[in-house]
Amino acid sequence: MRLLAFGDSFVLGAGDPYHLGWVGRTVLGRTDVTLYNMGVRGNTSGDVAARWRREASDRVVSHEPLRLVFSYGCNDCALQDGALRVEPAETLKNTQIILAEAAALAPVLMVGPPPVPDPLQRARIASVGDALRILAGQLRVPYLDVFTPLRQSGVWEAEAAAGDGAHPGADGYQQLADLVMSHPSWRAFVEDDKPVLTH
Amino acid sequence: MRLLAFGDSFVLGAGDPYHLGWVGRTVLGRTDVTLYNMGVRGNTSGDVAARWRREASDRVVSHEPLRLVFSYGCNDCALQDGALRVEPAETLKNTQIILAEAAALAPVLMVGPPPVPDPLQRARIASVGDALRILAGQLRVPYLDVFTPLRQSGVWEAEAAAGDGAHPGADGYQQLADLVMSHPSWRAFVEDDKPVLTH
Repeated sequence: MRLLAFGDSFVLGAGDPYHLGWVGRTVLGRTDVTLYNMGVRGNTSGDVAARWRREASDRVVSHEPLRLVFSYGCNDCALQDGALRVEPAETLKNTQIILAEAAALAPVLMVGPPPVPDPLQRARIASVGDALRILAGQLRVPYLDVFTPLRQSGVWEAEAAAGDGAHPGADGYQQLADLVMSHPSWRAFVEDDKPVLTH
Repeated sequence: MRLLAFGDSFVLGAGDPYHLGWVGRTVLGRTDVTLYNMGVRGNTSGDVAARWRREASDRVVSHEPLRLVFSYGCNDCALQDGALRVEPAETLKNTQIILAEAAALAPVLMVGPPPVPDPLQRARIASVGDALRILAGQLRVPYLDVFTPLRQSGVWEAEAAAGDGAHPGADGYQQLADLVMSHPSWRAFVEDDKPVLTH
């Protein structure tokens, strides 16, 4: 199986001393999975929308099942020169296009944005996450809300605050990986070898 | 520092149960390094030449030093429908263009192709590796010959033969990482924070 994960620095695993991030940790020990970690630091929904199809086309083959994961949103909710990098309506529009196009290629799953220590940005992330969850539901794409359990645990935000202010360390990424792996939608997503469309 | 490693399945780390490959293993514990593993299964020198600049441009920032690693060649030496996938002259032409363009952006380092269990393909890889080493020397790009020590040790090929016939497991990738990390050119490459050109 080829697993392509597109998104931001949290997908990449920035700050993880093991350079695995939550994505790498979900496939530890699985040599049957070829993982392409396509997280890019600073990426917004618009950045992912602009590059994911081209980068996927260089990594997809017809003889192996494909799975597509998307996870972003925190950078959309960041301020740049006093303005939001991406307005919520635009985040939703980008996501509608991404998920619809991706679902035509292969099974798709979305992992919602995690919390950050900054309370104002965090509140905006919570709001965008809710809207993304509703949109994904309308498109019948599984959506994993990780914001709420990561907030409740506090490990993620404590590591982020102790680090560079945004990215956790090994424990936070492992906790997110554990949340993802324990979700029924994820298990169905990566364990079933359903026939899939590829190009 | 941002470390971008372009190449084939050996760069990606296919077959490594830890999903690190030799590239990930060289930066274990270094949270100051943002690693973008841009290895793609099956890629030849031509495939890398066609995509690396575009993919790098989405991952490079002006405020962090950049390092570019390239490693490929085994797929060039593979047969497809009875013919070489890439003729040696074409491999060298692709590499000349890649290394010259990359060196204009940032410090560049090339890791030569590793051996494979198949003796005919392995002989072609040895020959192409020699030519790549000479070319890199002419371009003043550090070139690490890993073919010879991996052959001598035998761990790499034994794991590859016991696996899918091409890719080693954790021990082979660790051995390659150790070879790379112990090389003076690599240490200068990843440890010196020389000012570098970015776009």
